[in-house]
Amino acid sequence: MRLRNKPWASDFISQYPQYLIQAPENQKGKWNELFGNDNPIHIEVGTGKGQFITGMAKQNPNINYIGIELSENVVVLALQKLVDVELPNVKLLNVNANDLTNIFEKGEVGQVYLNFSDPWPKKRHIKRRLTYKTFLALYETILADKGEIHFKTDNQGLFEYSLMSFSEYGLLLKYVSLDLHNSNMEGNIMTEYEEKFSKKGQRIYRVEVQYK
Amino acid sequence: MRLRNKPWASDFISQYPQYLIQAPENQKGKWNELFGNDNPIHIEVGTGKGQFITGMAKQNPNINYIGIELSENVVVLALQKLVDVELPNVKLLNVNANDLTNIFEKGEVGQVYLNFSDPWPKKRHIKRRLTYKTFLALYETILADKGEIHFKTDNQGLFEYSLMSFSEYGLLLKYVSLDLHNSNMEGNIMTEYEEKFSKKGQRIYRVEVQYK
Ligand SMILES: C[S@@+](CC[C@H](N)C(=O)[O-])C[C@H]1O[C@@H](n2cnc3c(N)ncnc32)[C@H](O)[C@@H]1O
Ligand SMILES: C[S@@+](CC[C@H](N)C(=O)[O-])C[C@H]1O[C@@H](n2cnc3c(N)ncnc32)[C@H](O)[C@@H]1O
Repeated sequence: MRLRNKPWASDFISQYPQYLIQAPENQKGKWNELFGNDNPIHIEVGTGKGQFITGMAKQNPNINYIGIELSENVVVLALQKLVDVELPNVKLLNVNANDLTNIFEKGEVGQVYLNFSDPWPKKRHIKRRLTYKTFLALYETILADKGEIHFKTDNQGLFEYSLMSFSEYGLLLKYVSLDLHNSNMEGNIMTEYEEKFSKKGQRIYRVEVQYK
Repeated sequence: MRLRNKPWASDFISQYPQYLIQAPENQKGKWNELFGNDNPIHIEVGTGKGQFITGMAKQNPNINYIGIELSENVVVLALQKLVDVELPNVKLLNVNANDLTNIFEKGEVGQVYLNFSDPWPKKRHIKRRLTYKTFLALYETILADKGEIHFKTDNQGLFEYSLMSFSEYGLLLKYVSLDLHNSNMEGNIMTEYEEKFSKKGQRIYRVEVQYK
């Protein structure tokens, strides 16, 4: 996402430490204390402007959501949404997915969402794809037994690659849709990118995979 | 394929026992003797009118191909093609895929092709899909170590189902294309159905899977 730099972002962020958690590595193993309940924790990696995670949190009040977003300029927009709606079951983190295992204890996370992850189409950037094996290993570490990744994208090349990467890693393909918006999936929450691309007539691909 | 009954089919077939092999179970374990060489044997299940298998045989003279087709009315059209071109490395069988393990010895087959298999969209017909687990078990028995299935279809539902079925069975997805005719695959040989559906603007899906 190319967005103009927002000089006010850091200021705004520092006003809402209850929503955008500072020094999240201090919460490792204690996220349920922060939420004040024992509900499952689902994370979204590359949350963007937060429409998906806030929509999911409204739809599923008994699940805790944590949105992880690298870019301060982007996460601040998700934070604005969250300040407006005041959802108790969403937190945001302005961190890199590389740090997941410093932030979450083994098995602390119930599910991982990846939505419209950057495709990194060039072969030499393959390691940056969020479905590359090193990321699959990070998710495996923090996920509970039989944990799942739910992945949506409009990008054909990334989807093809990801199916192969999941298979190579030994994950089970539990569900595949090659045209989500013409499928019978109920309760789909659209992301910002999903709205944009589906309006252009692009197909949306979706897969659910499970660690064995 | 709905085709008018061909009263002349049996007669025609009986004239070419060197191409359309009668009592193929007698060849079990001895297919290489029939071909007169030790080249790998690749089979196509549901060969239809034979354009794929004759095209592959021309392209790859050092591979032996066996086309398996249930319908006499259809296989006779493949036989006509074969009589015209006189390819030494193609044979046809007018049998049901259920009988594969009576026809081939363990490990006798190098590769299985499935092209535009009947989709059987109704749940109650799932066991008839050629990518159902019982068929995957038959292919496993006759395939050599690390044998592969190469599967093409225009049918979205069958492709989605098949990806899940392959995964559930423990097969490795080695290659996936969600739009074969806009991919960089070289040397693709089109089947009759592939020509028909791609002319209509349908996407063609393709996958290569490997037994572990
Ligand atoms: C293409 S956007 C999609 C945003 C949102 N998920 C949607 O569907 O609208 C991808 C987002 O992932 C973020 N991102 C990329 N790599 C990341 C990483 N390693 N850790 C955290 N966020 C990352 C980017 O900053 C960007 O905001
Ligand atoms: C939809 S047609 C496709 C034909 C050809 N592969 C093509 O792509 O043009 C499927 C073919 O598979 C054959 N078939 C279906 N089930 C079969 C089985 N169990 N054993 C052998 N052939 C079968 C049908 O008779 C039909 O000719």
